[in-house]
Amino acid sequence: MSFAISGVNCAAATPLNADLTPDLGLFTAHCKSLLANGCDGIALLGTTGEANSFSRGERKAILEAALKAGIGAEQLIPGTGLAAAPETIELTRHALSLGVTRVVILPPFYYKGVGDEGLFASYARIIEAIGDSRLRIVLYHIPQVSGVPLSPGLIGRLIEAFPDTVIGIKDSASDLANMQAIVAAHPNFSVLAGADPLLLPLLKSGGAGCITATSNLVADSLRIVYDGVSDPARAAEVEAAQARINAWRSLSNSYVQIPTIKAMIGLKSGNTGWNRVRPPMLPLTDSQLGELRGKFEALP
Amino acid sequence: MSFAISGVNCAAATPLNADLTPDLGLFTAHCKSLLANGCDGIALLGTTGEANSFSRGERKAILEAALKAGIGAEQLIPGTGLAAAPETIELTRHALSLGVTRVVILPPFYYKGVGDEGLFASYARIIEAIGDSRLRIVLYHIPQVSGVPLSPGLIGRLIEAFPDTVIGIKDSASDLANMQAIVAAHPNFSVLAGADPLLLPLLKSGGAGCITATSNLVADSLRIVYDGVSDPARAAEVEAAQARINAWRSLSNSYVQIPTIKAMIGLKSGNTGWNRVRPPMLPLTDSQLGELRGKFEALP
Repeated sequence: MSFAISGVNCAAATPLNADLTPDLGLFTAHCKSLLANGCDGIALLGTTGEANSFSRGERKAILEAALKAGIGAEQLIPGTGLAAAPETIELTRHALSLGVTRVVILPPFYYKGVGDEGLFASYARIIEAIGDSRLRIVLYHIPQVSGVPLSPGLIGRLIEAFPDTVIGIKDSASDLANMQAIVAAHPNFSVLAGADPLLLPLLKSGGAGCITATSNLVADSLRIVYDGVSDPARAAEVEAAQARINAWRSLSNSYVQIPTIKAMIGLKSGNTGWNRVRPPMLPLTDSQLGELRGKFEALP
Repeated sequence: MSFAISGVNCAAATPLNADLTPDLGLFTAHCKSLLANGCDGIALLGTTGEANSFSRGERKAILEAALKAGIGAEQLIPGTGLAAAPETIELTRHALSLGVTRVVILPPFYYKGVGDEGLFASYARIIEAIGDSRLRIVLYHIPQVSGVPLSPGLIGRLIEAFPDTVIGIKDSASDLANMQAIVAAHPNFSVLAGADPLLLPLLKSGGAGCITATSNLVADSLRIVYDGVSDPARAAEVEAAQARINAWRSLSNSYVQIPTIKAMIGLKSGNTGWNRVRPPMLPLTDSQLGELRGKFEALP
């Protein structure tokens, strides 16, 4: 098997300044620390990154800042999928213009119940309009947020029509059986767990890796799981690492996930600026933060 | 009672050229014909208008074309709500810069389950950032598409905080009791039916009017309902008009609604260019079009 994308990739959170603009300096420092702590790639500007609360201009500035800070184009996997195809095309072309060839693309997420034919037409139109043989797309299945599921049939059609371009899927639906079915049907296609607890079981089923939120906090443990999964001698270490990941993930789900993950990065790094989120997200309350701090200190 | 927005307003469909760009000439001709057929206002760039499949540049061009064609700024109520607040602010400022002061604003629709506090913060930030006393906002409750309902509590808070700005709601959830409750709680706030069958019952309950899709086809009948609702002598005529609206509406729901409405405008106007939609919507198939034509000819 050879995957076009694999390993441990972080759905990086985006720190904000007091005026709720992106804190580019803190963001790029965070990305570098993620890479130093075991991540293979930074899937910036995803759901966890609050990308859909930023303007296109802000999104471009965030990607450019990462490159300018010295992170390699091959380590960056930005989300570029918007509701309107022309804007998805614009953001994807912008990434390609910077040498960033791997992107995560949501389906058009405003209209619901449009069907596989319509979603296929939308992705096809985007790929054909961009017309760049370097482009590598990770599909994004997160129906509980987008409201637009990507069916196995649609995935198969896209792989068949664009085998060099449609290289993988970030599956955040937390349905292991669905991921296993995609792996079985398309062995060289990269199925990436979007939910941390499924990293180990997915890898055991032939999955390619992950793009997850908890890797903002415990990238080192995700690295252990990914590197050790095939080594029987490391089984206990791998199980322990996955258990640690699950404990951190579980705490991050105590309140609304994105502000909680950011608050936990703040607790870990000692920088309370991480508590900021952009509406419609709200920061944790002082009482929630106090409660979180107690539980945080007890984490493995 | 005095409503800041009322009457029959059309959620205008957007015709497309063969390359799926907006057909501005046909669009403005359609808008003028809607006004000539009884509409008070054109709620362009809404869900039915496929607004969320257009870029911001295309949306601006569509609004500018309507003004350039001689439609009054006071007759235009564009949708300006996007997932990202900075882009909502940009589109709303653009409308205001053209003298268009009434806009329909969706809640930020990517993130789900964010709660009333977060949605209040999002609308408040948009209103305060724009900082224009001319601005008049129609909230947009269409949870079956946006995935983000606007609760009665949130609506009340927004009216209280911004009484001159938050003037109404387009309620497309087809829940008459919910609309009646909003009318009862806020008598001068404009509750507008988003679903045509509810125009008459909502008006009888003190509602302000409608913004609907079927008015693309039978604006004359909506006009009769709106004008005649309080006149006992016109009761039979009004009931018949509402029944005609319901029949057209019902046919438009035979297939996916937006392509079906557009196909029906095409059948009515003799211009098959109306069949075009932008992905993720797909045009009706030839077989569906044939079936639709037969039923269309039998409409009252």
